[in-house]
Formats: sequence, structure tokens, C-alpha cells
Amino acid sequence: MLRPTLGARSHGLLSYNRLFLRLQSTIAIPKMQKGVIFYENGGPLTYKDMPVPVPKPNEILINVKYSGVCHTDLHAWKGDWPLPVKLPLVGGHEGAGIVVAKGSNVKNFEIGDLAGIKWLNGSCMACELCEKGYESNCEHADLSGYTHDGSFQQYATADATQAAQIPRGTDLAEVAPILCAGVTVYKALKTAALQPGEWVAISGACGGLGSLAIQYAKAMGLRVLGIDGGEAKAKMFKELGGETFIDFTKYKNNEAMIKDIQEATKGGPQGVINVSVSEAAISASTQYVRPTGTVVIVGMPAGAYVKSDVFSHVVKSISIKGSYVGNRADTREAIDFFSRGLVKSPITVVGLSELPKIYELMEKNKILGRYVVDTSK
Amino acid sequence: MLRPTLGARSHGLLSYNRLFLRLQSTIAIPKMQKGVIFYENGGPLTYKDMPVPVPKPNEILINVKYSGVCHTDLHAWKGDWPLPVKLPLVGGHEGAGIVVAKGSNVKNFEIGDLAGIKWLNGSCMACELCEKGYESNCEHADLSGYTHDGSFQQYATADATQAAQIPRGTDLAEVAPILCAGVTVYKALKTAALQPGEWVAISGACGGLGSLAIQYAKAMGLRVLGIDGGEAKAKMFKELGGETFIDFTKYKNNEAMIKDIQEATKGGPQGVINVSVSEAAISASTQYVRPTGTVVIVGMPAGAYVKSDVFSHVVKSISIKGSYVGNRADTREAIDFFSRGLVKSPITVVGLSELPKIYELMEKNKILGRYVVDTSK
Amino acid sequence: MLRPTLGARSHGLLSYNRLFLRLQSTIAIPKMQKGVIFYENGGPLTYKDMPVPVPKPNEILINVKYSGVCHTDLHAWKGDWPLPVKLPLVGGHEGAGIVVAKGSNVKNFEIGDLAGIKWLNGSCMACELCEKGYESNCEHADLSGYTHDGSFQQYATADATQAAQIPRGTDLAEVAPILCAGVTVYKALKTAALQPGEWVAISGACGGLGSLAIQYAKAMGLRVLGIDGGEAKAKMFKELGGETFIDFTKYKNNEAMIKDIQEATKGGPQGVINVSVSEAAISASTQYVRPTGTVVIVGMPAGAYVKSDVFSHVVKSISIKGSYVGNRADTREAIDFFSRGLVKSPITVVGLSELPKIYELMEKNKILGRYVVDTSK
Amino acid sequence: MLRPTLGARSHGLLSYNRLFLRLQSTIAIPKMQKGVIFYENGGPLTYKDMPVPVPKPNEILINVKYSGVCHTDLHAWKGDWPLPVKLPLVGGHEGAGIVVAKGSNVKNFEIGDLAGIKWLNGSCMACELCEKGYESNCEHADLSGYTHDGSFQQYATADATQAAQIPRGTDLAEVAPILCAGVTVYKALKTAALQPGEWVAISGACGGLGSLAIQYAKAMGLRVLGIDGGEAKAKMFKELGGETFIDFTKYKNNEAMIKDIQEATKGGPQGVINVSVSEAAISASTQYVRPTGTVVIVGMPAGAYVKSDVFSHVVKSISIKGSYVGNRADTREAIDFFSRGLVKSPITVVGLSELPKIYELMEKNKILGRYVVDTSK
Repeated sequence: MLRPTLGARSHGLLSYNRLFLRLQSTIAIPKMQKGVIFYENGGPLTYKDMPVPVPKPNEILINVKYSGVCHTDLHAWKGDWPLPVKLPLVGGHEGAGIVVAKGSNVKNFEIGDLAGIKWLNGSCMACELCEKGYESNCEHADLSGYTHDGSFQQYATADATQAAQIPRGTDLAEVAPILCAGVTVYKALKTAALQPGEWVAISGACGGLGSLAIQYAKAMGLRVLGIDGGEAKAKMFKELGGETFIDFTKYKNNEAMIKDIQEATKGGPQGVINVSVSEAAISASTQYVRPTGTVVIVGMPAGAYVKSDVFSHVVKSISIKGSYVGNRADTREAIDFFSRGLVKSPITVVGLSELPKIYELMEKNKILGRYVVDTSK
Repeated sequence: MLRPTLGARSHGLLSYNRLFLRLQSTIAIPKMQKGVIFYENGGPLTYKDMPVPVPKPNEILINVKYSGVCHTDLHAWKGDWPLPVKLPLVGGHEGAGIVVAKGSNVKNFEIGDLAGIKWLNGSCMACELCEKGYESNCEHADLSGYTHDGSFQQYATADATQAAQIPRGTDLAEVAPILCAGVTVYKALKTAALQPGEWVAISGACGGLGSLAIQYAKAMGLRVLGIDGGEAKAKMFKELGGETFIDFTKYKNNEAMIKDIQEATKGGPQGVINVSVSEAAISASTQYVRPTGTVVIVGMPAGAYVKSDVFSHVVKSISIKGSYVGNRADTREAIDFFSRGLVKSPITVVGLSELPKIYELMEKNKILGRYVVDTSK
Repeated sequence: MLRPTLGARSHGLLSYNRLFLRLQSTIAIPKMQKGVIFYENGGPLTYKDMPVPVPKPNEILINVKYSGVCHTDLHAWKGDWPLPVKLPLVGGHEGAGIVVAKGSNVKNFEIGDLAGIKWLNGSCMACELCEKGYESNCEHADLSGYTHDGSFQQYATADATQAAQIPRGTDLAEVAPILCAGVTVYKALKTAALQPGEWVAISGACGGLGSLAIQYAKAMGLRVLGIDGGEAKAKMFKELGGETFIDFTKYKNNEAMIKDIQEATKGGPQGVINVSVSEAAISASTQYVRPTGTVVIVGMPAGAYVKSDVFSHVVKSISIKGSYVGNRADTREAIDFFSRGLVKSPITVVGLSELPKIYELMEKNKILGRYVVDTSK
Repeated sequence: MLRPTLGARSHGLLSYNRLFLRLQSTIAIPKMQKGVIFYENGGPLTYKDMPVPVPKPNEILINVKYSGVCHTDLHAWKGDWPLPVKLPLVGGHEGAGIVVAKGSNVKNFEIGDLAGIKWLNGSCMACELCEKGYESNCEHADLSGYTHDGSFQQYATADATQAAQIPRGTDLAEVAPILCAGVTVYKALKTAALQPGEWVAISGACGGLGSLAIQYAKAMGLRVLGIDGGEAKAKMFKELGGETFIDFTKYKNNEAMIKDIQEATKGGPQGVINVSVSEAAISASTQYVRPTGTVVIVGMPAGAYVKSDVFSHVVKSISIKGSYVGNRADTREAIDFFSRGLVKSPITVVGLSELPKIYELMEKNKILGRYVVDTSK
């Protein structure tokens, strides 16, 4: 059984402080480490000994202390997205740890700094998209836990330009989910291009992404309407700072729900963040969004389509925008909101060796909140 | 048969000049006029005598000299859009003429000024959307030739705030299609939010809207790729200033066409303007658009849907935006490009009494370029 | 002596409720009323009987219950700005009251609605600037208490398009200063174009404008650094939600202050709102603002200049923007923040008859907070 | 005497083609080269033999064929800007040549590619400003010909991320001035944030920067008003595509000139690009710019101040923005306009050994157009 071991978190901080003293001089890096690897899509997830990778001139080597587990890890393992993964693969892209080595070309990290591994491990930095800050959309994007071995191991490499800078003193277990889930919803909110005081609807408000989205939205001065199902979620929504909750289980049809959403927001929310992976929910959002408003797509149900009525799309002049993951600036900002205490991530910490069980729970859609693995166990 | 009577255009200007001299003192407004009216959707389009309308305090009365005929007029007559029309109805929303009377509250027009009737006849000017310049999306929008008798008559009324200001000396026949077709494509190009030097693809490049879009795009410093079918259109495209033509009739499948578009533009156009009313063409545009690019929907095929693959929508971070019609500023700007000679509208002028025949041609999709009716015939 | 009569505020609400019942049928409008008028710049401010004005077709007549007093009223009276005032003049442009009559053309107000008189009484709505939402910059702008008799009387007229819509149930005394002071700082913050999480410095943080700016900034998700002088202001700043206070009285020179501001904000605030009317403070702000940041000028000391070093202006790529008053959308939004309880305006209520004494205090720079006059006294 | 040797340009292209064939296998890089160096500010500019630099892991080594000469080179030599230069220094930051070697970490250049040395040689790519594309404003910016030896030598190094990518087949002499002068005015035009069809005034229209600005502005769909002095410049302005010329020598005072500019543009230009280094011209531009318009400062006269009247700055709601140099995206775009033939740079080519004479001409303000040095002579 998976037992949350909350005590581990303070340990993370302690071990960091202890390490830091030593780091002033030098850090001993082992040759071998523990990690979880799979050799073919859908094949066994094996917790085993493996070599510690060596950083290239532009890379840092991070001693990962904690790593969040994301639904994307499940897609990488299954191989059900159109983009092929590296094989064999060490997954994971929400890793928080300590810089223990760096390539000859790295200037922005020192040994002992805290650093994060995020979805975008590296990009070319020289194409038109990289030049404009759309590094995640770079054709040569290198993805942690997908095309580059990720954070489900004790030592992982990351391009220094893309690696996240984590302020000293940060709780490494709690910051882990910010590195992907947090940045992703923060970016989605920025993509909606709302102004403070406007309404944002979060479809799938109380899942791992949604619960962070509520908090970021509130910190950005937005009014939050959440859509999810059940009393427990209604309660959680209010506790996280949400203003109006729509329980979709209480409606017999979409029309009634759409009407209620539009009334509660006096004309529909100016923005909608679809973190739910329901195709029907995305379609509904194109209907209840306010004229001239923006629907943002974040969740990626395999094989799904965005579908919107042309007449109303034009006459209401709405936008449907895809939002992928944040760039370097988005990451810095998302971490800053966390560091300032405006966003908390409700995590459950377990040992890295228990990772296969978390994949099982994800497959059965039985995850509540966010799991974080402690790489020392 | 419909015979283009090009001579009529210079007549329009002459009659204006003659009128203007008289206008210095006073203008005689008749009690009765000619116009085309229908009493039920799909019913007979009758050219007949009807009373001249009386302007309200906030309105001007325009002696319409010429009016463009738009595909929307066909939808209004058929009643196949979800928005009900006024009945009986005088259609038309591209009317150019002379102000002959004005309400007590009107300050921005003088008798004798040139003015245009456009799709948006008036709006509340007090709701959130109007306040932000989205007057066309106003819940209380009053639409010429749809909810307000339009420009297929010799005298029509228009809200003075929304009526287009047309510079003295403008050819009233040629400016007519600018008032809707021109403003619409200009607004669509603005909605794509491109910067000079970027590529825009125009899907349906050589129709009434497309041929204007090519010229506006070029005047805005964009590089234009056009998609349409046949040698004649390829030739027309080049003459209007287009750079790369894609003849969709030459491709066996979408994949090959998409590949060619992406190669010609080194990665896909940054923006796409869908003036074609093909659902398939809209879907294709979501595939060939450049990552982080914008697909704009303008044409409104009845009952059609925008359909976009969620995975690629997110990973490429594209936007799909509906663009309706321009606001007051867009109208002024679109007319200004025309006045400066940067945009020409290829028109065929016929008498207003021949309007029913134009509707027939539109139904059979046999329209080339833009028809303009001369209300004096 | 001026005695704050706080009780008057609840009375305002009561009298409104009482009135509202009567209004359902009809409202009796007197022929004569009380107001404060002056006949020449710097001449006596006379509290006297005067005729109730009659609204034009596009205007509403507002029974002003309360009006804020603004520093601009002093400039209007003195006539020391380059723009000439109407004479004789009834000043005031922060009037909150009840609609008691309306012109034939007014559709967006009903008798009994709450409405506000703001600085921009009306504009042409047809020029390029009005079209784009820059109504305040319209060449034909009509200004309350400057070129149009304002809110220092019991009954005042306002163009219906520009008049502020005030939600039912609002405290009319407290909302009064929002109509100019609130909208002005809110607009300035929007002009700075910051994103939530960024730093804004407010120079002159604890005056009438500054104290509102702190609250709006916080509600918009910004981090607030305030610059003002003295312990009392430091305390007030923290109470209003500010994060870092810079007491300029504690510095011997600008350099030291600039250094502290830049350190506190890790590189300088991304935006600065200059509500202080000190020329030196404006210049300093061009130095401590973060590279690529924005300095906003709001306060208008007579005869002053913005002065910025060209080399640093270019190399740091900063912007200096003038921000005037809000448009219709800004007004609606600023009132909405107030209505949601996110912004409070610390007012002192006195009778309209005591207005001359407030002018005296303003001249001597002895005003603390915001004075509001009760037109019934 | 300085003799333009236009023939040299085609030679540059020939030698490139010849080189390219060889480069397929390997390139012989000499140990020593020719260059111009100075050892103290204002000291002798010596043309002499010096060692060929060795690229770092992140750098490319460029065999510079041609280099433009910019006014900034004069400031670097004199040392009259507040930012200290490296000493001894090889100046120059408009170098175009061929990549002959690259560091181990460089992926975006191949040996034989064309590349450009620009003002920003490299930046940290990890600070908040770099993350947002403001690399030029990076605190750790490394500047060619200022803090890093520049393009007044046959072989120079450049950070690969920042080095300009020049399309194969480009004339290396003509593209040289685009790398700084071109990018700078293009960036300034982008900073003005104008939309096609709007007016831009270029103050100092016919100098080295201005003559490029006219062409870029036109290619961006803007209407260009130029301000400069004399008949020759009026003629040149029209030839480059300008619309309205204001000859400032014909006005006795600023007021009359301002009036003419505002009338010619019906209210003032929406944007102004100050490439002139006159403090008075900058001040005048804050007066004639259209309300809500943008004044851009580019030229940097030593010790000068931007000065703007607070009252009018606020009431007209204008912006004054500093624009420094372009980032990677701006550079790519500016070169693209050049490659498409929309912008021509009027150059005079002389040997590198004659550089000291060009400095003399610059000091005497006797430069017409742009000088380019051929490093082989």
C-alpha cells in the first residue's frame, strides 16, 4: 500500500542544508544510482541500479531529491501519443534537487544551487520559435522523461539554459509539482490573456492541475468559477479560494449548465481553462464562454477533437487557444508565486520504488491530488 | 441577362457633384422611393414603390446611390442562420450614398456628406462589449438588411455613430463592397495579429472576400499565399499581388497540399484567413498553420463546425479565432486603404431592379467578383 | 470648522431607498436648487440658489447626493492649467446620485438608476480617438466641473453614454471618489501594463490617489512598493496592503534611495505610478525603474517637465507614459473592484456649503484622505 | 583619399563561393591576421598584424569579409559614454563573413555558413530579461567592438546563439550595415507599435539610420513623414519611398513646423522615430506626436535629456520609449526584409586600413550614407 510519508519533506530540506556545507568544497558523485526504467511501451517499470549520467558542456547534473508524477508519464509509458518516446526510458519531468556537477559552458548555475527538471529539458535556442520565447514549440525540443531520461532517478541531467532555478530554502518535495503542473496552468492562464477582475472558468477544477489553477487564478486577481462533480470537490474548491462552483453532476443537460454559468458570471467567463480531458467539456466551453472570450485547451485526451460551431464562433468572435508548457520566464514566475506562499501544492510523498503502483492508480483514474516520489527510498 | 454597366460608376460621381451644389441650400426628399422587399423567408423579392423612412433623433437618412450584394443577403432571405430576421425586410448592408437628413442629436454628419450603410447599423454603446470596441458583438446590435431595413432601397436610415464616414470625392459604386467585404477581411487580418513580413494564407483567395484580402494583406506588409482552384484564379491571384499560389485541385489528398504550403512558407503561414465556406478547408488550415500561429474563421457555412485535433492544437499552441465584422475604427481604416488606392474592388454594376437575378446566381454559386446595384435603375 | 459627519453616509443610502419607492411612479424635480458657483478664476466660491438644468436628448439629469472634491477642482478655480474653463462655473466631477430625468434618446438609464458624474462628461464618439476607446483624449471632450457645470450642485446633467453606471445598493458617499480618483489610478495601473506578480512602485503612496492605487494594485495581483514620507504614512501603507515602504525623508540623496528601491525589488519595479506632483520624484522614477519597465505620469504639477537621461532611457529601454483618466470600460471596472469590497475609500463627509473651506485646505496642502460633500447641507 | 571600391563587393561573393568549395573538407585558419586596434580612448587607431582569436565552446570564429562603420564606434574610441570599454580594443559590430571554426557546443552553425557579428555579441540567456527576449538589456551583455573585440579584423569570435544567420548568396558588403543600423531602426519601428496605414515621422530621415528607417517603415505598410534639411535630402527621401518631407531649415520656429507636421498627418504622426541626435528635435517630437502616440528615442547624443511637458504628456497620453538594439528575432526579420529586396543600404566600400580616415570624417560630421570596410585591404 502507498503510505504518504510527509516527514520525508523536511528531511529533504535538512539533507540539502547538510550537503550545502560540504558543497563549499566538493561533492562526491557516485557511479551508480537507483532509478525506474522501462524498455518498451507498456513494459515493466523496473526499480533498479543504473549508471549516473555525465553532463555535457551545456548541462548540469542534478541530484534529484523529489519528483512529481504527472499523467503525461503514463502516456510516455503507454506510447499512445503521436510523438515517439526514447527507449529504454527513465520517465519523470517534475524533479527538484541540487546541482552536483556542471558542464564547462555553464555559467548560470553553481554547484549547490537548487534546480528543477521540467518537461522541456532543452531546445535549440536558435530557431524562430526559440527566439520568440516559444521554446516548448521548438522542433528540436528535448523532453524530460520522454526523449531524455528524466527525474525518476537519483541523478539526472538538464540543459542549463532550460533548467529551473529554485530559490534557496524551498521545500523540494512541494515545489516538484510546480515544475510541470504549476507552470502548465500558470501558462494557460497567461494564454487566456485576462485582466484582473475578469472571470475565468476552470473545467476540471479540483484535479491535480485544476487545484493549482484555482490558486494561480486568484493570485492573478481573477474571479474563479470551477466546474467539477460532487460535494467534496465543492468544498475543496471553496477552500482553495474559488468563488462559484458548478457541480456538473447536478445537470440533466448541457444547456441548463451553460445557462447557469452565464448567469453566475453575467454573460459568461471571459476565459476558460480546460484541464479536464473530456471532449464534451471542451465543446461546452466554446458555448458558455463570453463573446470575444478565450477558451484555452490544456488537457490532451488521446485522439480527441476540439469542436466548435462556426456560426457562433464567428458571431461571438471567440478564440480557442492551445497552451502547452511554460517557457523559462513562465517557470520563473510560477515558482515565484509558489515561493511567496500564494500557491500550495497538496502532495502525497512515497518512495520512488513504489512508482509502479502510482501508474496503476493513474490508469484507474484513482489519483487524488499529486503524488511525489522520494528518490532516496 | 445581367449586363455590367461600368459607365454607371462615373455617373455616380457626377450625380454626387451635381447634388452637392444643390445641397448647399436644401435637399428635396421624396415621400416614396423604389426598393426590393420580401415578406417571408424564401418568398418573392419584389422591386416596388415604398415609403421613404424617417430618421430617429440619432439617425441619418442616406440617399443610397449604390449597394454591394453580399452572400449574407442570401442567408437573410433564406433565413437559414440561427438568428431570425425582421419581416418584411429590405436587405442590403453595403450602401454608399449622400446624407440628406439627420436627427436632432446627430453632430458628426452634415447634409451633403458621403456616408455608408454597413452590417452593424447601430449598437447600444453602453454595454461592456460596446465600451471595449466590440460593438458588432453587442447583444443589442441592429443589423442592416437583417433586423433593420437595409440598402436595397433609395433611402435608408443608419445610426449616426455607426454609419461609415466616406471621404468627399470617393467613387460610391466602388467603395460599396468595402463597407462590408472590405471591412470584414481587413478585420480578419487584424484579428490574425501578424507582423509585417510574416506569411498569411488566404483560403478561398480569389472570391469576393479573398480578392480584397490579398490586397489588404499586401498593403499591410504581409506575404500572401493563396489557396483556390484553377489557372484563371492563379493568374488573378498574381495580378492582385499574391506571392505563392496553391491550386487545391492539383492535389489528390490534403497531406500533399499541407506539405507544399509548409514548405513554401518555411514552416507554415503564421496566419490563415478562412474566407472559403468549406468545413474541410477550415480543418486543413489548423494543420498547415505554423506552430503558435493563428487560424481566423470568417466564412460561415450554415451548420458547419470547426474541428481541430486536440493533441496538435496544444503541442503546436495554435489559436482559432472567429472574426465577425469590423468596428468603427476598422471601417475608417479599411476605407482609408481604399481611398489611398491600395485596394481596388473588382465590381459589376447592374440596376437594383435586377437584384433577384443576382440572388439566383449566388444560389448557384456562379458569382465572379462582386455585384453592385445602382438604386436609380 | 469642518466636522466629518460620517452618519450622513448611511442617510444617503436611506434616502435613496426611500426615493426609489417613490420613483416607481414619478419623480418631482424642483425648479431651483443649491450649488456652489464662481464667476471668475480665483473669485469667490458662492453657495447659493440656482436653476436646475434641463437635460438634452442625449443626457440624463442626476440628483447628486454626494460629490468628491479633487485637486483638479482647485486648478479649475484658479485657472492655472493651459486649458481654459467655462465661466461662470459649477465645479465638481465626482458626483454620485440618482437619475431623475432623461433625454428622449437615452436608452441605457432608467429613472431611479444610480449614476455617476465623472471628469469626462461627454465626447464626440465619432473621431478616431473615440472610436478606439480614447474618449478622454477626444478633441471635443466636455469636462465636468471644467467646461460643463459639475457635481457641486444638487442636480447636474451628464451625457448618458459617458455617465457611470453605479450598481443598486452602493453607498453613494463612498463611491464618489472612485469616479475620478479611483478610475484615474486604476487606469494608470492598466497603462503600466504589468502582469500579476510584478512590482509596482507608487510615488506619493499615501495621498488621496496613492491610497487607492495601493489597493487597486494589490487586487490586480501586483506587489506594491510605496514611496512617501513619515511613520504615519508607513503605517497606513501597510494597513492598505502595501509590501515595502520607502520613506524618502530618511535619505540624504536620491542615489541611496534609488539603490534601496532596486534592491528591495531585485532590479527595480517593472512599473512606477507617479501620483506625487513632484518633478524631482518623476525624474528619480526614470532611474529606479527596471530595464524595459514603464514609468506612468499621472499627477500634473503646473509648469513641470518630465526629464530623463537619453543614454539610460535608450540602453535600459524604458517607457514614460502619460495616463489621463479612464474611459467607460475603465470606469465600469474600477467601480466593480470597489463594489466587490477590494477597494475602500477613506472619506470625510461635510456639507456642500462648506466647500470653500476645503479649497482653502487644498491650497495649504493640508488635506488628508478625501473630502466628500453632501449636497443636502 | 577614400575611394569607394564598389568592385570589391562582387569579389566578396566570389571569394565566398570559392571558399565554400574548399570548406566542404576543411578550412585553413591562419595564426595571424590584419586588424585595427587602439590601446587607450582617443589614442591612435593602428592597422597591424595581430593573432587570430580562438573560439570558446559556445562561440563561432568568423572570417569577416566586410564590416560597416557606425557612429557608436566613434563613441567607443572616444570613451564618452558612461559605459567603459575593454582596452585595448578592436572595434566594429557590423561584420559579415564566413564561419571557419566553431566551439564544441555549437549546433546552429556549420563551417561555411554565412554569419554576422552584431552589437550584442552574447548575453547570459538565463536572467529575467534574456528569458523575455530583452537580451540586449541583459546586465551581462557582451558587446562587439566595445567589451569584446569586434569586426575591424579579419577573424572575429561571436557567441553562436547571438550571431546573425545570413542566408546563402547574400552580398556580404551590403548586408553589413543591416546588422546594426538596419536592426536598430527596424526594432525602433517595432517599438513604436504602429499598425499598417498609420503615420510615422522619422526625425533625421536622410542619415545612415534614417534612410534605412524610411524603407523599413514603407515595407511595414506605414506612411512616412521625414524631417531633415535641404533639397538634396528632400529628393533622396522621395526616392526611398517617403511620402511627406518637412525641411526644418525652412522654419523660423518650432511652432510653425509642428503645425505643418500635424496638418500633413491629420493630427500628428502616431509614431516618431528619433534617429537624429538633436535634443531639441526630441523635445519637438513630444509636441507634434498624435494624442496617444509613441515617441521612440534611438539616437544617443552624449549628455542629452529627453524633456517633455507634464501637462501635455498626460492630457495627450503619449509614450516616450527608448529603443536600443534588436534581439535575435528582430535581427532575423531585419535581414529577411533586406534579402527580399525591400531595403537597400547605400554603402561606400573602402579598405580596412583606411578606417582612421573614416573616424575623422565621422568626427567632422561629414559622413554621407554608410561606410563599409573590406578587411582584405
